Amino acid sequence: MPDPVASRDVSPQLDAWRTRADAALARALDSIEHGEPRLLAAMRHAVLLGGKRMRPLLVYASGRAFGADDALLDAPAAAVELVHAYSLVHDDLPAMDDDALRRGRPTVHVAFDEATAILVGDALQSLAFSTLADAPVADGRRVAMLRELATAAGADGMCGGQARDLAATGKRKRGQSHFSEEDAGSIQDLDPKNDSDPFFSPADLERLHAMKTGALLRASVRLGALAAGAGEAALAQLDRYAEALGLGFQIRDDLLDVEGDSATLGKTAGKDVAQAKATFPALLGIDASRRRLAALGDGMHAALEPFGTDAAALLALGRLALERDR
Amino acid sequence: MPDPVASRDVSPQLDAWRTRADAALARALDSIEHGEPRLLAAMRHAVLLGGKRMRPLLVYASGRAFGADDALLDAPAAAVELVHAYSLVHDDLPAMDDDALRRGRPTVHVAFDEATAILVGDALQSLAFSTLADAPVADGRRVAMLRELATAAGADGMCGGQARDLAATGKRKRGQSHFSEEDAGSIQDLDPKNDSDPFFSPADLERLHAMKTGALLRASVRLGALAAGAGEAALAQLDRYAEALGLGFQIRDDLLDVEGDSATLGKTAGKDVAQAKATFPALLGIDASRRRLAALGDGMHAALEPFGTDAAALLALGRLALERDR
Repeated sequence: MPDPVASRDVSPQLDAWRTRADAALARALDSIEHGEPRLLAAMRHAVLLGGKRMRPLLVYASGRAFGADDALLDAPAAAVELVHAYSLVHDDLPAMDDDALRRGRPTVHVAFDEATAILVGDALQSLAFSTLADAPVADGRRVAMLRELATAAGADGMCGGQARDLAATGKRKRGQSHFSEEDAGSIQDLDPKNDSDPFFSPADLERLHAMKTGALLRASVRLGALAAGAGEAALAQLDRYAEALGLGFQIRDDLLDVEGDSATLGKTAGKDVAQAKATFPALLGIDASRRRLAALGDGMHAALEPFGTDAAALLALGRLALERDR
Repeated sequence: MPDPVASRDVSPQLDAWRTRADAALARALDSIEHGEPRLLAAMRHAVLLGGKRMRPLLVYASGRAFGADDALLDAPAAAVELVHAYSLVHDDLPAMDDDALRRGRPTVHVAFDEATAILVGDALQSLAFSTLADAPVADGRRVAMLRELATAAGADGMCGGQARDLAATGKRKRGQSHFSEEDAGSIQDLDPKNDSDPFFSPADLERLHAMKTGALLRASVRLGALAAGAGEAALAQLDRYAEALGLGFQIRDDLLDVEGDSATLGKTAGKDVAQAKATFPALLGIDASRRRLAALGDGMHAALEPFGTDAAALLALGRLALERDR
């Protein structure tokens, strides 16, 4: 079939949406009335670290595919980015990934302090929900969007994926850990001294990423469509697109770590290998990872086919995610 | 006027609601489908640490005052307690209050580990919103309830209050803190080396507690009333009750620390003084604090007067909060 994207350059559209998303984020932060000054400064710092604005762009692109006006999409666009930004702040904490820099700037616990960073993440999550609760769409749609975001962010989504990641890489500080007898009964299969699983399969890794990053990417796509009033069948079709995008995004990330050079990446290449992280190249091999990525690109394309040129921006974003070089 | 409570013993009702709240919390936790086992075990541990279930009881009592069936109130009751439980987990972290025990049991980061405790708090907050999004009330009311909870939990409420507390007590780990030049411009008035304010007034302390604990208590009262379809005038009247309750709760807490003995309290008496914490007895004196507490009790009573015996359970809860001996 003729490629609907080839005939159009969507990058001016993406730039315009990125500007809209930044404005919506600024409005969300400005809506705080009695914020403690240092907390507010740290929240702004965190949101600025967010970067590419991939998730808001997915909200706009998905809403556009179903004819929604951009004004209906600002609140969900800001909300998904606030959740993403909060997750970065908490992931960077010393007890988690212990990262001092993100996109060349000091992370929140470094620029401010650890207690503030914990609160920043907590308050950004709340702000995501209060922002979404004010989206100018019908109440029923708003409830559906709020439920979608809450589920994607929580133990069945992003937080659950991060917990799987901790379990897989044994990043947890085991020295601190002990269990009361009461706990031991309820988590019998978990030996805190042996929580890094040597038999981590590619399927386990897919599940981990489907939750850790995939859930919020999928929610971004669904939120745009929900704001536009898309039906169940369309949402299910979009899920196929979003799942391919999410997994492809991660495989691309893993491949870049192996293939890329640090200057282009803006972060240290080879870090995953150095940390003995479970990655797709490590579990599948580089060639098989590349083939899987190509297949996901095809699947993404096929999932969008029924929407024709309406999905041009979604397809362009998918390609950006799967073909990026940093 | 005759005391509407004197003629009725509400404690069997409170026990029944406490049982309902625990069941609603168990259902919320059971709704997680793909949770990582250790994360789930730690979330259960955190929710069990919650204790008195004051906030769910306020939801039920407030809903009852406006004729709501208990079944409409289970979701908001669980939601407010999930937010409370998450806040305790994060407050107990080493970077915050660094508490190893809560209600005689190890805190989450001690029983599990710090990374898990961070994720537990994050996932409990999400679970609060997904639980509330499923409340069996009309969409418009659900949106109002979700907005209410998000605002009360965030930078304008609980998180903002905790940030003020950190600023007041200088608990932040200053050694780690530095600012980039860019940040310095946006937070000009904040000297990170002098963030403990020696001129902390009683009004500052009231504001701190109105946000840190008062906002969620007030939201609990409002959520019950919103589920029942109460109007703006009734909500404003309930706010007067909830604000007196929230402040009185804290003054009682501070007085217990000075007057109580550790055995009755179940925690170390005199800890506030030892930590040089800003408290009402420290700022106002003990006698003035007692007088303020009595005046708040009267105000609470007056705020409920228009509701007559319908507010019997709310009044009983208010008394429990202001007259408790632990």
